[in-house]
Amino acid sequence: MTHLWPVRVYYEDVDLAGIVYYANYLRYIERARSEMIRAAGIDQSALRAAGLVFAVARLEADYLRPARYDDMLEIETRSADRSRARFALDQAVRREGVELFRARVTIVCMDTEGRPRRLPEGMAGL
Amino acid sequence: MTHLWPVRVYYEDVDLAGIVYYANYLRYIERARSEMIRAAGIDQSALRAAGLVFAVARLEADYLRPARYDDMLEIETRSADRSRARFALDQAVRREGVELFRARVTIVCMDTEGRPRRLPEGMAGL
Amino acid sequence: MTHLWPVRVYYEDVDLAGIVYYANYLRYIERARSEMIRAAGIDQSALRAAGLVFAVARLEADYLRPARYDDMLEIETRSADRSRARFALDQAVRREGVELFRARVTIVCMDTEGRPRRLPEGMAGL
Amino acid sequence: MTHLWPVRVYYEDVDLAGIVYYANYLRYIERARSEMIRAAGIDQSALRAAGLVFAVARLEADYLRPARYDDMLEIETRSADRSRARFALDQAVRREGVELFRARVTIVCMDTEGRPRRLPEGMAGL
Repeated sequence: MTHLWPVRVYYEDVDLAGIVYYANYLRYIERARSEMIRAAGIDQSALRAAGLVFAVARLEADYLRPARYDDMLEIETRSADRSRARFALDQAVRREGVELFRARVTIVCMDTEGRPRRLPEGMAGL
Repeated sequence: MTHLWPVRVYYEDVDLAGIVYYANYLRYIERARSEMIRAAGIDQSALRAAGLVFAVARLEADYLRPARYDDMLEIETRSADRSRARFALDQAVRREGVELFRARVTIVCMDTEGRPRRLPEGMAGL
Repeated sequence: MTHLWPVRVYYEDVDLAGIVYYANYLRYIERARSEMIRAAGIDQSALRAAGLVFAVARLEADYLRPARYDDMLEIETRSADRSRARFALDQAVRREGVELFRARVTIVCMDTEGRPRRLPEGMAGL
Repeated sequence: MTHLWPVRVYYEDVDLAGIVYYANYLRYIERARSEMIRAAGIDQSALRAAGLVFAVARLEADYLRPARYDDMLEIETRSADRSRARFALDQAVRREGVELFRARVTIVCMDTEGRPRRLPEGMAGL
């Protein structure tokens, strides 16, 4: 499944070079993951109430070109890999089709004590 | 009681004009409040475990001069006012003695349902 | 003029109580101001290139009820007051019509040396 | 060269699970890099005035255990690799000696048009 989500760059996002601060791409791609999960009909609050938590376990990111103040960006999120208790997503940030940032994000499903748990049913369709 | 706390300005804090983004002064002064409470021997985690929460109810802030990348700042926090369930602090951000920002922050003590609660004993000395 | 702008609450926005961290309302209302200025046809980058900068000079904010993770919020921005070199905006954050946060934000127009400058023409319609 | 830097976890840093939001480790390790560069006697503002900029080109990060509200953390930064225009650092975040997060960060030296530039002299000692 491929999911697209728009993000605007605001003052809060850029550093003194007028480009997006490197940690803020992680905020952008997390918004896109939340929206992909919402679009799949999965209720994160309900999962949490049921004692299931998703946590980022690993991140590999390439910063290719800078995003700038006021840019309109598009985040693409795609399923990359999946096992019993973890899955990986490939996420790209683009401006008018040009890739600025890409990351592979590995996410684990845990209970609230941090033990790995089987991915919930609804995740199969992602 | 007057409490002083140093803060360094990093990349994460400034905007494209090279000055501290206006919301980030609120992060700085919250760090100073946490440290003042720690210095007074109050354990916020224990209060929270006991069902007591502090929340900002009102903020009045004046932005006087910009703080810049790499500046070393000092936050001064002083008790300003107090009633049964709320207290006010005056906080100032200075660089080499020059005031850059000042705020009056009114904080309420609540239970976890949001009902006002009497301030805990240890707060009397603040 | 009244301007409305939607904001979704993400993980990046909330604190350990599951409510929006107090400084983050300032990020939300700044996004709304940027969008209001864009909607009025004013190009902030062009103003900056021409040596004009807007800076927040004063902020009065009331935190009425907490916004929570995953909430869909609406920011209302209204002109409140205006003089030669400064203007004030009233901004409210609502969830399903209920006011959670409101602020009066006073903004000054300056040159890059920080001297007050007359508001640009296009601001008259705000 | 190995550099150590302490970081306290504040309210601004944690999410609704009470653990540090994943993007915020990048803020922590950037503070440590800035302090390592300062400790080496390199003036980032002077480099920028001379048209030299450092930018993160690649990041590989492992999230091993969560850092929590109020934790006192230590960031270790070590040189890992170096070529003409780029260098890599290994950074670890620990709490009482236990590793919570580690990252390899690859940084390029560029001019203000984004062209690779030779690392400045002072960097040799890092």
